[in-house]
Amino acid sequence: MDLDGLLDAFAAGSVSREEVKRRLLGQSVVDIGSARLDCQRTVRTGAAEVVFCQGKTPAQVADIFKHLGDRNGTVLGTRSNQEQYESVAEKMLVRRDPVSRLLVYGEPPADLLGKIVVVSAGTADLPVAEEAAQTAEFYGSRVVRHFDCGVAGIHRLYSIAEELQDASAVVAVAGMDGALAAVVGGLCAPPVIGVPTSVGYGASFQGIGPLITMLNACAPGVSVVNIDNGFGAGYLAHMINARLTRASGEVAE
Amino acid sequence: MDLDGLLDAFAAGSVSREEVKRRLLGQSVVDIGSARLDCQRTVRTGAAEVVFCQGKTPAQVADIFKHLGDRNGTVLGTRSNQEQYESVAEKMLVRRDPVSRLLVYGEPPADLLGKIVVVSAGTADLPVAEEAAQTAEFYGSRVVRHFDCGVAGIHRLYSIAEELQDASAVVAVAGMDGALAAVVGGLCAPPVIGVPTSVGYGASFQGIGPLITMLNACAPGVSVVNIDNGFGAGYLAHMINARLTRASGEVAE
Amino acid sequence: MDLDGLLDAFAAGSVSREEVKRRLLGQSVVDIGSARLDCQRTVRTGAAEVVFCQGKTPAQVADIFKHLGDRNGTVLGTRSNQEQYESVAEKMLVRRDPVSRLLVYGEPPADLLGKIVVVSAGTADLPVAEEAAQTAEFYGSRVVRHFDCGVAGIHRLYSIAEELQDASAVVAVAGMDGALAAVVGGLCAPPVIGVPTSVGYGASFQGIGPLITMLNACAPGVSVVNIDNGFGAGYLAHMINARLTRASGEVAE
Amino acid sequence: MDLDGLLDAFAAGSVSREEVKRRLLGQSVVDIGSARLDCQRTVRTGAAEVVFCQGKTPAQVADIFKHLGDRNGTVLGTRSNQEQYESVAEKMLVRRDPVSRLLVYGEPPADLLGKIVVVSAGTADLPVAEEAAQTAEFYGSRVVRHFDCGVAGIHRLYSIAEELQDASAVVAVAGMDGALAAVVGGLCAPPVIGVPTSVGYGASFQGIGPLITMLNACAPGVSVVNIDNGFGAGYLAHMINARLTRASGEVAE
Amino acid sequence: MDLDGLLDAFAAGSVSREEVKRRLLGQSVVDIGSARLDCQRTVRTGAAEVVFCQGKTPAQVADIFKHLGDRNGTVLGTRSNQEQYESVAEKMLVRRDPVSRLLVYGEPPADLLGKIVVVSAGTADLPVAEEAAQTAEFYGSRVVRHFDCGVAGIHRLYSIAEELQDASAVVAVAGMDGALAAVVGGLCAPPVIGVPTSVGYGASFQGIGPLITMLNACAPGVSVVNIDNGFGAGYLAHMINARLTRASGEVAE
Amino acid sequence: MDLDGLLDAFAAGSVSREEVKRRLLGQSVVDIGSARLDCQRTVRTGAAEVVFCQGKTPAQVADIFKHLGDRNGTVLGTRSNQEQYESVAEKMLVRRDPVSRLLVYGEPPADLLGKIVVVSAGTADLPVAEEAAQTAEFYGSRVVRHFDCGVAGIHRLYSIAEELQDASAVVAVAGMDGALAAVVGGLCAPPVIGVPTSVGYGASFQGIGPLITMLNACAPGVSVVNIDNGFGAGYLAHMINARLTRASGEVAE
Amino acid sequence: MDLDGLLDAFAAGSVSREEVKRRLLGQSVVDIGSARLDCQRTVRTGAAEVVFCQGKTPAQVADIFKHLGDRNGTVLGTRSNQEQYESVAEKMLVRRDPVSRLLVYGEPPADLLGKIVVVSAGTADLPVAEEAAQTAEFYGSRVVRHFDCGVAGIHRLYSIAEELQDASAVVAVAGMDGALAAVVGGLCAPPVIGVPTSVGYGASFQGIGPLITMLNACAPGVSVVNIDNGFGAGYLAHMINARLTRASGEVAE
Amino acid sequence: MDLDGLLDAFAAGSVSREEVKRRLLGQSVVDIGSARLDCQRTVRTGAAEVVFCQGKTPAQVADIFKHLGDRNGTVLGTRSNQEQYESVAEKMLVRRDPVSRLLVYGEPPADLLGKIVVVSAGTADLPVAEEAAQTAEFYGSRVVRHFDCGVAGIHRLYSIAEELQDASAVVAVAGMDGALAAVVGGLCAPPVIGVPTSVGYGASFQGIGPLITMLNACAPGVSVVNIDNGFGAGYLAHMINARLTRASGEVAE
Repeated sequence: MDLDGLLDAFAAGSVSREEVKRRLLGQSVVDIGSARLDCQRTVRTGAAEVVFCQGKTPAQVADIFKHLGDRNGTVLGTRSNQEQYESVAEKMLVRRDPVSRLLVYGEPPADLLGKIVVVSAGTADLPVAEEAAQTAEFYGSRVVRHFDCGVAGIHRLYSIAEELQDASAVVAVAGMDGALAAVVGGLCAPPVIGVPTSVGYGASFQGIGPLITMLNACAPGVSVVNIDNGFGAGYLAHMINARLTRASGEVAE
Repeated sequence: MDLDGLLDAFAAGSVSREEVKRRLLGQSVVDIGSARLDCQRTVRTGAAEVVFCQGKTPAQVADIFKHLGDRNGTVLGTRSNQEQYESVAEKMLVRRDPVSRLLVYGEPPADLLGKIVVVSAGTADLPVAEEAAQTAEFYGSRVVRHFDCGVAGIHRLYSIAEELQDASAVVAVAGMDGALAAVVGGLCAPPVIGVPTSVGYGASFQGIGPLITMLNACAPGVSVVNIDNGFGAGYLAHMINARLTRASGEVAE
Repeated sequence: MDLDGLLDAFAAGSVSREEVKRRLLGQSVVDIGSARLDCQRTVRTGAAEVVFCQGKTPAQVADIFKHLGDRNGTVLGTRSNQEQYESVAEKMLVRRDPVSRLLVYGEPPADLLGKIVVVSAGTADLPVAEEAAQTAEFYGSRVVRHFDCGVAGIHRLYSIAEELQDASAVVAVAGMDGALAAVVGGLCAPPVIGVPTSVGYGASFQGIGPLITMLNACAPGVSVVNIDNGFGAGYLAHMINARLTRASGEVAE
Repeated sequence: MDLDGLLDAFAAGSVSREEVKRRLLGQSVVDIGSARLDCQRTVRTGAAEVVFCQGKTPAQVADIFKHLGDRNGTVLGTRSNQEQYESVAEKMLVRRDPVSRLLVYGEPPADLLGKIVVVSAGTADLPVAEEAAQTAEFYGSRVVRHFDCGVAGIHRLYSIAEELQDASAVVAVAGMDGALAAVVGGLCAPPVIGVPTSVGYGASFQGIGPLITMLNACAPGVSVVNIDNGFGAGYLAHMINARLTRASGEVAE
Repeated sequence: MDLDGLLDAFAAGSVSREEVKRRLLGQSVVDIGSARLDCQRTVRTGAAEVVFCQGKTPAQVADIFKHLGDRNGTVLGTRSNQEQYESVAEKMLVRRDPVSRLLVYGEPPADLLGKIVVVSAGTADLPVAEEAAQTAEFYGSRVVRHFDCGVAGIHRLYSIAEELQDASAVVAVAGMDGALAAVVGGLCAPPVIGVPTSVGYGASFQGIGPLITMLNACAPGVSVVNIDNGFGAGYLAHMINARLTRASGEVAE
Repeated sequence: MDLDGLLDAFAAGSVSREEVKRRLLGQSVVDIGSARLDCQRTVRTGAAEVVFCQGKTPAQVADIFKHLGDRNGTVLGTRSNQEQYESVAEKMLVRRDPVSRLLVYGEPPADLLGKIVVVSAGTADLPVAEEAAQTAEFYGSRVVRHFDCGVAGIHRLYSIAEELQDASAVVAVAGMDGALAAVVGGLCAPPVIGVPTSVGYGASFQGIGPLITMLNACAPGVSVVNIDNGFGAGYLAHMINARLTRASGEVAE
Repeated sequence: MDLDGLLDAFAAGSVSREEVKRRLLGQSVVDIGSARLDCQRTVRTGAAEVVFCQGKTPAQVADIFKHLGDRNGTVLGTRSNQEQYESVAEKMLVRRDPVSRLLVYGEPPADLLGKIVVVSAGTADLPVAEEAAQTAEFYGSRVVRHFDCGVAGIHRLYSIAEELQDASAVVAVAGMDGALAAVVGGLCAPPVIGVPTSVGYGASFQGIGPLITMLNACAPGVSVVNIDNGFGAGYLAHMINARLTRASGEVAE
Repeated sequence: MDLDGLLDAFAAGSVSREEVKRRLLGQSVVDIGSARLDCQRTVRTGAAEVVFCQGKTPAQVADIFKHLGDRNGTVLGTRSNQEQYESVAEKMLVRRDPVSRLLVYGEPPADLLGKIVVVSAGTADLPVAEEAAQTAEFYGSRVVRHFDCGVAGIHRLYSIAEELQDASAVVAVAGMDGALAAVVGGLCAPPVIGVPTSVGYGASFQGIGPLITMLNACAPGVSVVNIDNGFGAGYLAHMINARLTRASGEVAE
């Protein structure tokens, strides 16, 4: 029942003043009603479905998956381990990708929309890059991968210059010197989401190195998410892509 | 002369092989030609116009402004001081906003497009918030400002919930605890660009505090730019807004 | 024998001057006597009973528990492991909660007094939140738990607004962005004790992230304890609650 | 108009559904009505009155003071400078203490209640200690000051042991090694609020040194606020004192 | 052959100029000869005997022990593990203390001289405290241990005030808040060598916390060695004690 | 086909304008042709052959080795583990040195040229020192090793003073206080490449200690590579040595 | 009246039990009486005389100097500025050394005893080195200065090798790479007190660089005080020297 | 008198054994004599001539310049200010470049040799880049400058690719993201010396950002000097260039 309904019911006397107050305080204030807010709720639900598995017991993960899966039909879990997967798999049909560590319940959208490019600097950045790519795909975006494009051989980036230009968003994944994000930002117009990774050693400081590099990127158009946060980058890239694709489509019809 | 022209001229014998090679190596490889690359050049030019004034002498700033202004018609300078302004003003008609420290040459676009919301936590964050807002306006985006919305009185954010929802992008500017970005990210669907500021004292560590908070934002959809980097956030927000607005428009016709 | 008794015995010649001096230097200076100081000794004893198990051998933990248990009747151990538990369990009847890692000897108070609210941001913060809650219960406070109230879905906090308002103290446990403490501090009047946790990854820096966020909390009324220090927060919350409850009671009679 | 009134008016048809929705979204959700929430609003107002002056222009500070002063009768400003004071003083009768940098409008409560003890380690910590003390006094608490009690001469603390024991809360202000908070925490039962200061040099790192020391305090019962945050400590100490004093009093009658 | 001998031999023509030059460059320039320098060589040798075992293979440790043992008669190894011990034990008769991790070859001096006091804050600091104590004993100093004297119960320190005063040097070992060194430094005249330990969690940052605290110690007379460096403190305390004891003795005869 | 060939082919009409554009964008711009650029490609190839094994799966390492080995004849892998070695060894004949963790395919150059000196401070620095030495040897440089030359016994360095002076480059490997690089830099003229190692404990902070020391080296002529980056130092030393040796040789003929 | 006297007076009935208790709690517990404790009080007084001037107002410094000067005859102030000097000079005859910033009241001891060597790395370390030297002289130690002995020209240290060997203690003052302390520690037997200075730039991080270097000194016998803490080093060196010199002398007679 | 002369004189009886010992200990051990060591002395002298002016008084700088100038004929001072320049200029003819802050006495070499390329990222890096370039020129190297080549417009680097390839060494000067060094390292074979600068704001942390980026450079062949240390980079580049140029030359004749 949305806010309109609630107020109508109250005016009609079918719900008490206490009930109105309880629900206004106890529920999401965004849960108030209107088409746009429905749209927002959908978005929220999408986010709510994401389960940060790390630090949870297998039983907790399984319970949350069961609960969300029954309600929403799809669930995404990040940073899962094998034991958590097995615990969930006893209750429902889930897939786990050992590289990205994503745990997925439900079918992905049939048609992937728009285009997101995920570029990464080295092979060791693969798990984070895949987490970004598969997250965006889970939500329904089409993803093009270009891995192993570190700036030590910067010419490799030129071969994908066109690819970068017509993406809705670019995710740049890099550890060590993290210069990839700045260089990509200097090469193309779409928003670049930098994901520093903990790949490296010594002065990479488990990802602080590339994080700082990306924050200082001289090329504008680059923003940054947390170290190893492939999920966050994939989610954000999808949001930008979905809105851009939808904008084209909505107007088209 | 773009790449097509260059190759034609070479085939026609009007430029030598050495000249072709010199220009291919010596010029931007993106300067090669095609509608999409033209579009890119425009974007690049936009970025190239930005002059990071801090650390430059007044004479250097004036020279760069003169050079860019003659070529492009508009120039944006960031982190300028009064002395630099005066040096430029001797050569050309520029405006400097003492709050945002932006130095602007040329007229802004007549019609501002789309919508970007800039929210900030406190009055002391104003300079950074204004830098973001005015940067986006310089490039042609319409900006709505909601300042002084810190989470200590989080209900203020609810009053602008609708405003946030239909923005192309939201810029969240906050120092001290920096929680604003995470809370805004949890309230709305558009991409949120967090700008940590150096406002605060003690454990805010000149902006490291809110920077770390924003990087750890539990709400997905939040990415972060450098401390006090209002320009970067405004630029990125504009890029997202411009593409989104254009997508709607292009399809419409 | 308190100071009064000691001085009387000295004046009466039943203890020597050397004995007086030895005991004054060698004992707690608070062990001097008077009702209020007795009350203090009780407090001290309560604190002294707490055994920081981490880094001690199982045998050391067992010895300390035996010694304190015989003297005080109850003992609380923090950060214990299974092996330490087993070593103590050979000597006396103890309970260990594997979530909070607390090791407890003796019966808790029959009637729990007052009210402390422990709120936490995510499921993974549970161990620290439980350490806080069970510590406060060990000392005799009544605790209400509200877990999984992170600011990404901040409306969940509104449903417990009343609950927060009439608590003696609120313990806010959060990792990652740690914004919970600031938001709770902005929502209610009781003292808020923030406990940053090492939950998270990347720029949470094993808890430095939420620690800094909480220290910078824009809402006044928030203070902070060490990362993962659920015990410290529970102890402090109990002290505030016990004094507040006692104040009401003492005056009542 | 509180929520009850609003709902009644809606039921009675005197306000429209749109108006109800606008106000629910646009106002503080805690602004809904009931004696307890009124009490909360009072608390909020108290906090809202505090103006963090640092980084604001004199004109901004004066505007905020005028606005708040007209509504609330009293206003507290922290970290003010002389110029801000003069700007405010043109509009209204304010006092500024150059040591604590507090800027105060309105009369303090006639009768100061309860007892807070503020101890500080050295003479150079005075500004922060005074900020804490005067903040608590502004809100109506009685404050006892014991300055220059650093642990290098720890016996000085013993002379105030009784004083500490019957306080509602103790504020311990120290720079350099910051050991004062831990030692005070080990000497008395009331909650101890540690305020690390930026006094010192070298490895005190502008207050990080004492901050870390206080967070690691072995004695339980100690919590910490931001570096140099005398205001936060004084506010929190007052809140604890006021509730404790009120609890005694309320029951008494 | 010392420098005198070398020069005599050169003057006598029994060594060539090249040989003189080779040896002057190739040998320790302090290896030149005289009673005082012999004394220095003895000191150097003592230091040279210390084997930092961490990071060496068992075979390397065994080789070094065999080599030094044959030459010097005694060898001290620090931070050894069980495997290294077993490797050495196949070649020679060594003892390993599992608490301090010291590996010792040769008999300790029959009569221990002077007095060093080692105080430590908690039971978990025992390994470092024992490393300090046993190192000093290895070199021939008499050591008095007072463990578990943390400042949370600071009165325990008063009972050993006399003990501290007539020591040649005091080693203060503490993790967590590390306040012990400052407090001991305020209580007694001998030089206090602070050893921060990695005991603790969260904001103790593996010993950075107590390290910073000790460096900021308000009481003069305190200096600090590396985190967990019990060996360094024991060695330094012994050097001070040996010189002080020797000074008394030498003059006496 | 190099750029000359490409342009000729285009002028001759045998390749289309689209093909020219595709290849100019898609290939390395340095891959355009000329003897010097060939020389550069050789250099690049040398670098490209290096496989950073850490974080790659055994199968990935094996695939890359096979691919590079077939093309280049030799491959160097750094930071390999035993499992990766075994995976590669199934496909081709490789050697792995367990100390330096280098994985090598192909024969080293028959004649090692010039001279590089690698000095290290302690036995525990051996793995990094060997990584530097063997890397330089892999590329064809002659290496002289002087290990265990820490500044605690600084006279050992004097015995190798001549050795240092006529080297093409000196690699100085040290953990803990890292003073070796500064001292070596003060003793000799060749460029000194400092390699801080993670050997040590406590305030060495996994190599940050010696890194900072080396960056602050008072002696000019010292530059620094990443912590534990023996490969980088060996590679750079080889490049300097090869060019210096070649310069002598080229001119000679 | 010492403790013996107090107890006698109490036994004799001339002081009441309340008076005994008041004084035991209110005074220094070390103020209890005995020749040795008198000696301690003298030591304490010496320390108490030191006024940390930084952060105090000129008037506060003058008051403290007047008070201490009247009681003790001599006062030492550290980190004073010119304004503070002038304020004190209005009340009493003081000297201020602008290099070391020490402010001294009273005559130094006529005969300086023993020997302390202060070595420093560069000319810019002079202020800290002089603070150490003059502090030791203030207390009565004889000081030999050897400045500008940085390790970049390490041979300079050999010329003072004998000088170092027969010192009671060596103070090693260095900024930048801070290697001096380790090298000196490897050259001589006396205790070496390292003083890192904030001299340098970039990665010296205002003294953190040399601080970390000194803490990691491979040579045992080195301990460290706070950055720029010349006073602390001079005080500690004096304490070691005074006790060593006194030991010789006391036995002699 | 060199070592040969000293030994001859001793053998001839014209200097005593004591004199020999005194001079061997008291002088530089490299001051012993031989063609190679002369060469070394020349190198040392070059380094010794460099005066780090920062933190020295004008009078001290003038004295050192006078002393060194008389002995060596040329002197280089770094980080000088105007006041120091004026003080020196009273005594001798010196030049000061206000951009690089270098203070130079004596004529530069007539013919500059070899080639060093100094590239910098932005205009604000100019002072550091000039310090590097002018230092190398002071010692006699020919320097080619390419400023304003930041990676945001990375194509600018391609235009100087040939220039980079035939340099003896490349100095890459960059603040902010510091990616320039890695990209240059990936483009050319000569050794690249990275100089991070303190240009930037926020997360560049006064140069820590580019420092870490450069240390993590994925391209081998890059080493790093201290933040803003243009002198060190110029000196090192000269040393490499001089030896390389000399090697060619020596063989040629």
